[in-house]
Amino acid sequence: MVVTLLMHCRDQPGIISAVTGFIHGCKGNIIYLDQHVEPEIGIFFMWLEAQLSFESGREPFLSDFESEIGKRFSMSWDAFFEDSLPNMALFVSKYNHCLYDLLSRYEAGELKAHIPFILSNHPDCEPIARQFDIPYYHVPFSKEHRKTAEARQLEILRDHKVDCIVLARYMQIIGPDLIGAYPNRIINIHHSFLPAFAGAKPYHAAFERGVKIIGATSHYVTEELDAGPIIAQDVIPVSHSHRVADLVERGKDLEKIVLARAVQLHLKRKTRVYGNKTIIFN
Amino acid sequence: MVVTLLMHCRDQPGIISAVTGFIHGCKGNIIYLDQHVEPEIGIFFMWLEAQLSFESGREPFLSDFESEIGKRFSMSWDAFFEDSLPNMALFVSKYNHCLYDLLSRYEAGELKAHIPFILSNHPDCEPIARQFDIPYYHVPFSKEHRKTAEARQLEILRDHKVDCIVLARYMQIIGPDLIGAYPNRIINIHHSFLPAFAGAKPYHAAFERGVKIIGATSHYVTEELDAGPIIAQDVIPVSHSHRVADLVERGKDLEKIVLARAVQLHLKRKTRVYGNKTIIFN
Amino acid sequence: MVVTLLMHCRDQPGIISAVTGFIHGCKGNIIYLDQHVEPEIGIFFMWLEAQLSFESGREPFLSDFESEIGKRFSMSWDAFFEDSLPNMALFVSKYNHCLYDLLSRYEAGELKAHIPFILSNHPDCEPIARQFDIPYYHVPFSKEHRKTAEARQLEILRDHKVDCIVLARYMQIIGPDLIGAYPNRIINIHHSFLPAFAGAKPYHAAFERGVKIIGATSHYVTEELDAGPIIAQDVIPVSHSHRVADLVERGKDLEKIVLARAVQLHLKRKTRVYGNKTIIFN
Amino acid sequence: MVVTLLMHCRDQPGIISAVTGFIHGCKGNIIYLDQHVEPEIGIFFMWLEAQLSFESGREPFLSDFESEIGKRFSMSWDAFFEDSLPNMALFVSKYNHCLYDLLSRYEAGELKAHIPFILSNHPDCEPIARQFDIPYYHVPFSKEHRKTAEARQLEILRDHKVDCIVLARYMQIIGPDLIGAYPNRIINIHHSFLPAFAGAKPYHAAFERGVKIIGATSHYVTEELDAGPIIAQDVIPVSHSHRVADLVERGKDLEKIVLARAVQLHLKRKTRVYGNKTIIFN
Repeated sequence: MVVTLLMHCRDQPGIISAVTGFIHGCKGNIIYLDQHVEPEIGIFFMWLEAQLSFESGREPFLSDFESEIGKRFSMSWDAFFEDSLPNMALFVSKYNHCLYDLLSRYEAGELKAHIPFILSNHPDCEPIARQFDIPYYHVPFSKEHRKTAEARQLEILRDHKVDCIVLARYMQIIGPDLIGAYPNRIINIHHSFLPAFAGAKPYHAAFERGVKIIGATSHYVTEELDAGPIIAQDVIPVSHSHRVADLVERGKDLEKIVLARAVQLHLKRKTRVYGNKTIIFN
Repeated sequence: MVVTLLMHCRDQPGIISAVTGFIHGCKGNIIYLDQHVEPEIGIFFMWLEAQLSFESGREPFLSDFESEIGKRFSMSWDAFFEDSLPNMALFVSKYNHCLYDLLSRYEAGELKAHIPFILSNHPDCEPIARQFDIPYYHVPFSKEHRKTAEARQLEILRDHKVDCIVLARYMQIIGPDLIGAYPNRIINIHHSFLPAFAGAKPYHAAFERGVKIIGATSHYVTEELDAGPIIAQDVIPVSHSHRVADLVERGKDLEKIVLARAVQLHLKRKTRVYGNKTIIFN
Repeated sequence: MVVTLLMHCRDQPGIISAVTGFIHGCKGNIIYLDQHVEPEIGIFFMWLEAQLSFESGREPFLSDFESEIGKRFSMSWDAFFEDSLPNMALFVSKYNHCLYDLLSRYEAGELKAHIPFILSNHPDCEPIARQFDIPYYHVPFSKEHRKTAEARQLEILRDHKVDCIVLARYMQIIGPDLIGAYPNRIINIHHSFLPAFAGAKPYHAAFERGVKIIGATSHYVTEELDAGPIIAQDVIPVSHSHRVADLVERGKDLEKIVLARAVQLHLKRKTRVYGNKTIIFN
Repeated sequence: MVVTLLMHCRDQPGIISAVTGFIHGCKGNIIYLDQHVEPEIGIFFMWLEAQLSFESGREPFLSDFESEIGKRFSMSWDAFFEDSLPNMALFVSKYNHCLYDLLSRYEAGELKAHIPFILSNHPDCEPIARQFDIPYYHVPFSKEHRKTAEARQLEILRDHKVDCIVLARYMQIIGPDLIGAYPNRIINIHHSFLPAFAGAKPYHAAFERGVKIIGATSHYVTEELDAGPIIAQDVIPVSHSHRVADLVERGKDLEKIVLARAVQLHLKRKTRVYGNKTIIFN
């Protein structure tokens, strides 16, 4: 059984030695560890993957870790076992390139997750859901019925025991209730190189400014629009000869690659949020 | 004799045919042409390089071009002959990586320009100027003596018949008089991916925001800070493990490459400014 | 009606002037032109897109072009009208990432082509063909029945009046008959940065050599394996920590992006092959 | 005092725990550690940087590490203390862009090394050596006097107690005596994306093949030409419009960036060679 441990605590001597000693004492074998210290704030972060034999079961392992390591270093930590597959919901509007890209990866077995449903504020992508044999919820969204729509979304999420949400070009603001229910577990793709061109119509803004490179940014959703912790970014060159429609077309490839990279990092437990930043154990 | 012609006018039928016919009529041979239309505003741009035999001299060629082409299409145009070497001044503060990079390219004969002097608000780079045997003017800059310093700069620029100015990490605001005297002929390097992180301390701002990519932008200087027409941009990946000092160090390579690229485009007459954007004929 | 003209001939004075004059004389409006000279061999290439009004129809336009321009400059040329949609066949084996990517672009209307069928030497991708409602031909391939298989392929291609073929990770050698029937019209994706690691198992070879970057190359198929004219290439960084399986996974994104880019260039008539190289009018 | 430890040994349980426990026992504080296992061959690698207080001095630390850790795990290891500055010789021929780039970084204090001299088979770069006030040895190289030249090189290297050599576009084959004296300590820059275009005139070969991307590779020199362990690689896009001379010019920036990156990794002790590959602890 492979376990992934993510931890952070105040930086202090002996943490790595204690943690690796604990794993060694459990007859576990460390496959990989990565650590990081934020020197400005004195916080230590560690990511550790270990092969465990588990004579004594998972619960004793977890409670021993807490009593021997967690308490001693006042550590914040999480453990993920390889056989636990998170439920990942996909939210989408009308654009389908990110949806197709994620679904073809899912079909090819590349995503370590179960996709229980696709939810949209439009009916357009329903045929794609049918193509891939995944339930589709059409939850219309308008300013007047915002509360109703959000309540319906939360209900569906709860019914399917969803662990994380991917906004695969979902073009509606996510309300505070949903964000509160899924802290650092809603992944968005924004079609600009954030913090440049936050908000609506970033390709139009990039065209107006005459930039020579456009980008895409995947981030966790927080209450401030397009300002959450960044997980992944990438760019491609453009020129004066590209119109807004060309930027939109060229940007699609970027969006799907960057979103898929962020989703993979999240599913492989390689991300840890601290303040408004991510530590990426890669 | 090779001539480079840059032109723009209202888009209308027959421009390319007329211009290429004119060159052909002068027994000129077109080496390369590139054209571009901004459909939103209906403006036609063209860059043309031709080998001329010049039985009749340059002046008749230029006046014939104006009377046969320029007037007919109400065209804005410029001609550059290959034997005219522009005078390019370098402004620098304390950082020397861009200065060294430009000077080593100059020494290797890669820049089609003459560098008459280096000007700085600090004495630090004078030894480098001596190394490369180029005059160095130390013009201190302070808020109180701003007017005096700017007047001195303009005087030195005029004395040396300077055509264009490169701000090779010159850390002072350029005043409106200087900008007015060198419209679209002052090239700056800003150490961020504009429009993100305009203004002071962009590496600090990038660190605070937790971006996964940093950039550099070279642009023509206009009165609004860091908002002029962009000539060239490039980026490199960074991670949570890089501190501000690491961003500064990694950014240096980016700054020198991007600035050198913009300088080369300008010297090869490959840039045309329209509105607040550049057309790059490349 | 928009026409795209591709031409090449011996470099000589007056070609651009004559061609643009001809278009102007037909009351056509040039949307864009790009030209290129290979100075080592003295060949002139041009790509021209024009809006035609066509009072007189297509045939007179084409025959006038040949008599006034083609003959005069001993020119090799092709014309494509915007309303002619090429038939593009997809060949695939077991990997489906490139297939999914092309089909989702097709479904989104991004590819200016009609896909009449998918052909494979394996039955594995048939469900995907059904998902997208496209005919699927399973043509098994073995050394003993090579001739039969190739004859069957040619028959299917002719029945569907196929113009070009995309090998979307089709893992069989293409025989000389097929190559002869589709010169410079079979597009392959090879999973390495050619000419490095041509042939079988390029990711294994890249792993053995310890490279720090891997690539993908899309090229026209010629009789010599992986040696045809290159259309597009791209790369991504890798490290010592990636095993062969990681390279395979990371390479998939590269393969689909590079193949799609090459397919788009081909469909937009932006490629011209000369010798063993491509001119890309971009 | 900061110490950097590089180690490798057969993979076995408890190594990380033992090493970090040893450092903790010396009242050392681990700044960063990175480890890697080559699963195919079962070898464990580790890089560790620690702040030591050194009540007992360096020698006891080193001998204790050997007796408590090195022997126990049959480990191959090296320790570098931050106050030991390696002597790094620069070899150059006629091209000076890499030389200028390294010297300007040296002057700016970015390289943790001392440069005792520049050696060349040509007199051309001597003025640059004088500019930077560094001794210059002109050791002509011809087939007939190869042995004499190599003996002279070795003599100069020994006189200056040189630790590593950077071939900053040195265009002569390095003989086996020199390679034997500096195993994995001679860094070369080759102007292609290896293994493509090894040997002479790679830009010509890239032009002939019609590639759409060119590269540069920095590697340790071994007896087989251009086949040593790769330290760093990078690429830039090119097009059909670039002639060989354009590739040479564009490649220069790439060469200097990639060589500088490799030199920095070597000087920061981030490289470990195993077989014909490098582990880069980054």
